[in-house]
Amino acid sequence: MALFVKKFGGSSVASPEKMRHIAERVLKDKKPEDRVVIVVSAMGDSTDDLLHLARQVSPRHYGREMDMLLTTGEQVSVALMAMTFIEMGVPAVSMTGAQAGIRVSGSFGKGCIREIHPERIFHALEEGKVVIVAGFQGETEEGDLITLGRGGSDTTAVALAGALKADMCEIYTDVDGIYSADPRCVPDAVKMKDITYMEMLEMARLGAGVMQPRSVEMGSRYQIPIHVRSTFTDDEGTVIREKILTEGSKYMITGVAQDADTAKVAVLGVKNQPGVAHMLFSALAESHIVVDMIVQSVREIHDDKTDMIFTISRNDLDDTREVLCRLQAEGRISDVVYNDKVAKVSIVGAGMLGSPGAAAEMFGALGDAGINIDIISTSEISISCLIGEKDMTKAVRAIHARFFAGH
Amino acid sequence: MALFVKKFGGSSVASPEKMRHIAERVLKDKKPEDRVVIVVSAMGDSTDDLLHLARQVSPRHYGREMDMLLTTGEQVSVALMAMTFIEMGVPAVSMTGAQAGIRVSGSFGKGCIREIHPERIFHALEEGKVVIVAGFQGETEEGDLITLGRGGSDTTAVALAGALKADMCEIYTDVDGIYSADPRCVPDAVKMKDITYMEMLEMARLGAGVMQPRSVEMGSRYQIPIHVRSTFTDDEGTVIREKILTEGSKYMITGVAQDADTAKVAVLGVKNQPGVAHMLFSALAESHIVVDMIVQSVREIHDDKTDMIFTISRNDLDDTREVLCRLQAEGRISDVVYNDKVAKVSIVGAGMLGSPGAAAEMFGALGDAGINIDIISTSEISISCLIGEKDMTKAVRAIHARFFAGH
Repeated sequence: MALFVKKFGGSSVASPEKMRHIAERVLKDKKPEDRVVIVVSAMGDSTDDLLHLARQVSPRHYGREMDMLLTTGEQVSVALMAMTFIEMGVPAVSMTGAQAGIRVSGSFGKGCIREIHPERIFHALEEGKVVIVAGFQGETEEGDLITLGRGGSDTTAVALAGALKADMCEIYTDVDGIYSADPRCVPDAVKMKDITYMEMLEMARLGAGVMQPRSVEMGSRYQIPIHVRSTFTDDEGTVIREKILTEGSKYMITGVAQDADTAKVAVLGVKNQPGVAHMLFSALAESHIVVDMIVQSVREIHDDKTDMIFTISRNDLDDTREVLCRLQAEGRISDVVYNDKVAKVSIVGAGMLGSPGAAAEMFGALGDAGINIDIISTSEISISCLIGEKDMTKAVRAIHARFFAGH
Repeated sequence: MALFVKKFGGSSVASPEKMRHIAERVLKDKKPEDRVVIVVSAMGDSTDDLLHLARQVSPRHYGREMDMLLTTGEQVSVALMAMTFIEMGVPAVSMTGAQAGIRVSGSFGKGCIREIHPERIFHALEEGKVVIVAGFQGETEEGDLITLGRGGSDTTAVALAGALKADMCEIYTDVDGIYSADPRCVPDAVKMKDITYMEMLEMARLGAGVMQPRSVEMGSRYQIPIHVRSTFTDDEGTVIREKILTEGSKYMITGVAQDADTAKVAVLGVKNQPGVAHMLFSALAESHIVVDMIVQSVREIHDDKTDMIFTISRNDLDDTREVLCRLQAEGRISDVVYNDKVAKVSIVGAGMLGSPGAAAEMFGALGDAGINIDIISTSEISISCLIGEKDMTKAVRAIHARFFAGH
């Protein structure tokens, strides 16, 4: 007897007909003794429709009321999904996040699952029912409805799998697994049979969009294997787990990631003295701006001045300009140069720890392709290069070819 | 300092723009020290849209899941309505039925409010907020979402007013009060300033559709005055209360009601012996068929046979046929005649108790208009006549003219 948590996204449940396909698929895969919990998102564009209504009321975003509004989207999905199973003669019951015992803290629109009281789910499973839970939502201690942040339904699924001690959490999506590079960019990218939590986290952090880091962290914490697979085919996808079981996974690196959502900021000629970096990055942190790569380069000719170069998400560009303009007005920094025509390419792999040649190979691949490297940064299991945005696809292909030739 | 509960129906909140009108109206009427709770229904056609989705899944009606689906309609309304107030600079908070402490028992789709725990509403009112509560819904003891039966949002409003010991429950609707007859049928019908709970209940029972009996009963139980008034004008409507305060209300009767949703069934030639009526009406009750008027007429020439004539709602006609066919097959009754081309006209008035001439006046009005009376039935505060459906409007006008001439 196995317990599965299966998550289906908004495009998989966009219509009653698609829901029927999902139900059929779940029942085809289900052994009689299996217990199944299904997590669904809001149907297709329904969240956008609700947001459109809210914008007609106000251009502003009133967190609590917005969550009151948006949580209806998943509630509609679970009700219709449960009806779909019952109509097929299979006992099923829908639950809102609150009914499923999902307690969430944090601010509205960005909730974090704090704890799960799964008694009601267990009770329904014991009654032989398929349990359909609304993703992306939960209840605060005060009894308010609250939505989770980005990738919320995935987080719901993985957290539920942890609380229920499920054997596997399956994330059904529009891609059929995790690839060694984005297949839209690298046609011969290799689908991985499995990948470790740590590698997947690093891939996600560096721009591989399949899974949000929060759900992968959650899987790692509860040691729940996460099977990322396609809604549209029966093929096995990629399993994210603690240790790689696959015999064949001997690549020095796991994959190549790319991220065009990056912008470079150069603060020129700041005083090279203690406390300057602290002043600059504290001011950015106070405005909730996340800084990614940081390089400080001392000018050889003016030994009291230095350039401070860093990268941020393009969404934070306006806020960053505001902070830096204030610092300029206060006379604390002088010239600033912005460049949003950059991109980041990275290689990821736990195996790199023991392969010191990986960095050289990566730089070689970029050099041979005539691509200039602007900034380099490294972590224990990754190496990233900032390059011109126009070169991104060429760079990813060149790096992938270098490491995955022959696979 | 007064506490008001104000209920707005689905057509009043059909768009963000209409919500803004309602908020402006509520704020215009509100004294600074007043506390206001607003109950709203689902926006315009949104309940129909949800039902349409459900029908794509199944022609059947799965109660619990249907309520899970339908309760989202009011949740969307309260969220947007609260945003509307906040956008106008007025603190407000939305609540689902469950959050408002509305505990409901009974079967799905037909819930009855069992108790209300209004602590959270009081707390929000003390914080100076306008409280927006989802009508038509509540939570069962098991934590399931459940909708109330017909007229559900009115019931929510009146029950909340009772639990909060409100000074007044205002029901905003598309008519501007209770009239002495349906104004669409009788152009010179008189708008009443007030009417007693008992009279209103009798009017509702006899076909005056403005208020559902359940909400009026609830108002009577908690002694909450219910002000029925128009969403579109500032005019006073009609107040339903225990005792009529108006000096001028000296009509012997309160109003004339009409009901075309009626059908006549005649079970002919049943044995005139003890137990026959019990057998017949038990069989109907078991199929949840509500019988309205009942007449038993003994045939003079066959003293062992009698005709049993009764009226039902037209919606119950098919079920009634099924029950009676079974009794025919079992040989317990013989011929049955159905007639759905009938209508019921009634006069209602607590004052009739002391005015024995009212019945005679009513029959006289019908006779002068050349209308034949098929069945007569009376209660303490009403007299009803079954007539041909084609004569209904003529009958109501004739009766109204007889009693209200000169008003």
